[in-house]
Amino acid sequence: MRLDVVTIFPEYLDPLHVSLVGKARAGGLLDVRVHDLRQWARDRHNTVDDTPYGGGPGMVMKTGPWGDALDQVLADGYEQGAHGPALVVPTPSGRPFTQTLAVELSERPWLVFAPARYEGIDGRVTAEYATRMPVYEVSIGDYVLAGGEAAVLVITEAVARLLPGVLGNAESHRDDSFAPGAMADLLEGPVFTKPPEWRGRGVPEVLLSGHHGRIARWRRDEALARTAAHRPDLIERCDPAALDKKDRETLSLLGWAPEPGGRFWRRPPDVEE
Amino acid sequence: MRLDVVTIFPEYLDPLHVSLVGKARAGGLLDVRVHDLRQWARDRHNTVDDTPYGGGPGMVMKTGPWGDALDQVLADGYEQGAHGPALVVPTPSGRPFTQTLAVELSERPWLVFAPARYEGIDGRVTAEYATRMPVYEVSIGDYVLAGGEAAVLVITEAVARLLPGVLGNAESHRDDSFAPGAMADLLEGPVFTKPPEWRGRGVPEVLLSGHHGRIARWRRDEALARTAAHRPDLIERCDPAALDKKDRETLSLLGWAPEPGGRFWRRPPDVEE
Repeated sequence: MRLDVVTIFPEYLDPLHVSLVGKARAGGLLDVRVHDLRQWARDRHNTVDDTPYGGGPGMVMKTGPWGDALDQVLADGYEQGAHGPALVVPTPSGRPFTQTLAVELSERPWLVFAPARYEGIDGRVTAEYATRMPVYEVSIGDYVLAGGEAAVLVITEAVARLLPGVLGNAESHRDDSFAPGAMADLLEGPVFTKPPEWRGRGVPEVLLSGHHGRIARWRRDEALARTAAHRPDLIERCDPAALDKKDRETLSLLGWAPEPGGRFWRRPPDVEE
Repeated sequence: MRLDVVTIFPEYLDPLHVSLVGKARAGGLLDVRVHDLRQWARDRHNTVDDTPYGGGPGMVMKTGPWGDALDQVLADGYEQGAHGPALVVPTPSGRPFTQTLAVELSERPWLVFAPARYEGIDGRVTAEYATRMPVYEVSIGDYVLAGGEAAVLVITEAVARLLPGVLGNAESHRDDSFAPGAMADLLEGPVFTKPPEWRGRGVPEVLLSGHHGRIARWRRDEALARTAAHRPDLIERCDPAALDKKDRETLSLLGWAPEPGGRFWRRPPDVEE
């Protein structure tokens, strides 16, 4: 897979040399190129932004430098044999970046990232490139960043670990929160390793029992409890057909009840004593 | 504000020298310290992980190195005059990191980050420190990363830009997606700047009109359209009392209708012709 990133802060992308993405690059699985947008600025101040039409606070990134940068990055890539580019624009106005979207992006041969700063990139840039390739405007979450560079690191890491050959034995897709499998749509509960006692704290007895069925049940109950506490929305979206009798008992103990006639479970309203 | 980060990939945090966070540090608004967890490993292989109790794939980060690391980082901080620490643990099993939580964290004087790798940190570590300080287990989104370091960059940036004196004039809190204000709970629509024509593409006429009321209305309609397309959940959660007559007309044109008797607007079911 080829990745190009055009940014006014190339050094922000240095972590792409480290850890999983760094190893994937060293192993020839990823070809990453980071480009300084200011190379394509057109004045001696290297200006890449200007005031917004219609007024208001903040600055807007200009069409000219972005258009020239993307044209050249694409031309260079095609010349080097890359094909099938998609443009990825991290923006708080985008659709949510999810594991499903990470899988979709991991199946593409070439991603070009355009992380914006300030109030965003002039809207004509995405409109122009959308006529030539898929454009993914994505938001990594409901919070405001100073720019899209941190989002590029997040998206790149989520995508890279899905590429064949990238994950080692110490890491695993199985049972990941948000990954398909036994724990689909549930958060993982706590994990423990040696020693059996630390600062007076032991580990749950069942994990030392060697009884696989009980261990799996305990993990499932812990996952249900964690999910109910941190992500009630995932419990509410849960397909009741995916819950067995013991799951229902656990949820009931946690204060949840099936909604009469509905397909979702919901926390019952507080009852006045 | 003081930030400590304990990690097995200290170089992943190099972007904390760049851009907004870098400037905040240079300006004395942020004191950031990054520590290599392996300093506190106890064998000549610098081991920080081991196999999980109860079996299963992956590795779990050990109590010993984390406990020793956090104890020393906390002791050093207190000695240097820091106070009121909170532990922030990025994990897919955490509660969602949102702008509201960014604001809450920005009001704390000292954040200590414990980004995990592999299957996570032994559950006794958070249990132990939760007896001494607030522990925030947070997830930056519904996707799987290789480790918590990218999440630390995201959280740090979202928090740092809220600190007094950090944001310059080119950046602004106002009208941010997810920030309180006129655009509360709506995504921002497209923005434009000079030149008025680029590659045959103009800018919306209204933005050149100088008519503030019409410009505000156009922006609001674009925000509604963008939100309806990318985040229907935000439209469904919208308080109808916050929508004026024109908002309702715009949503109606976009295919949304008020739910009879309900407080939410919902996309009506497709009607067979």
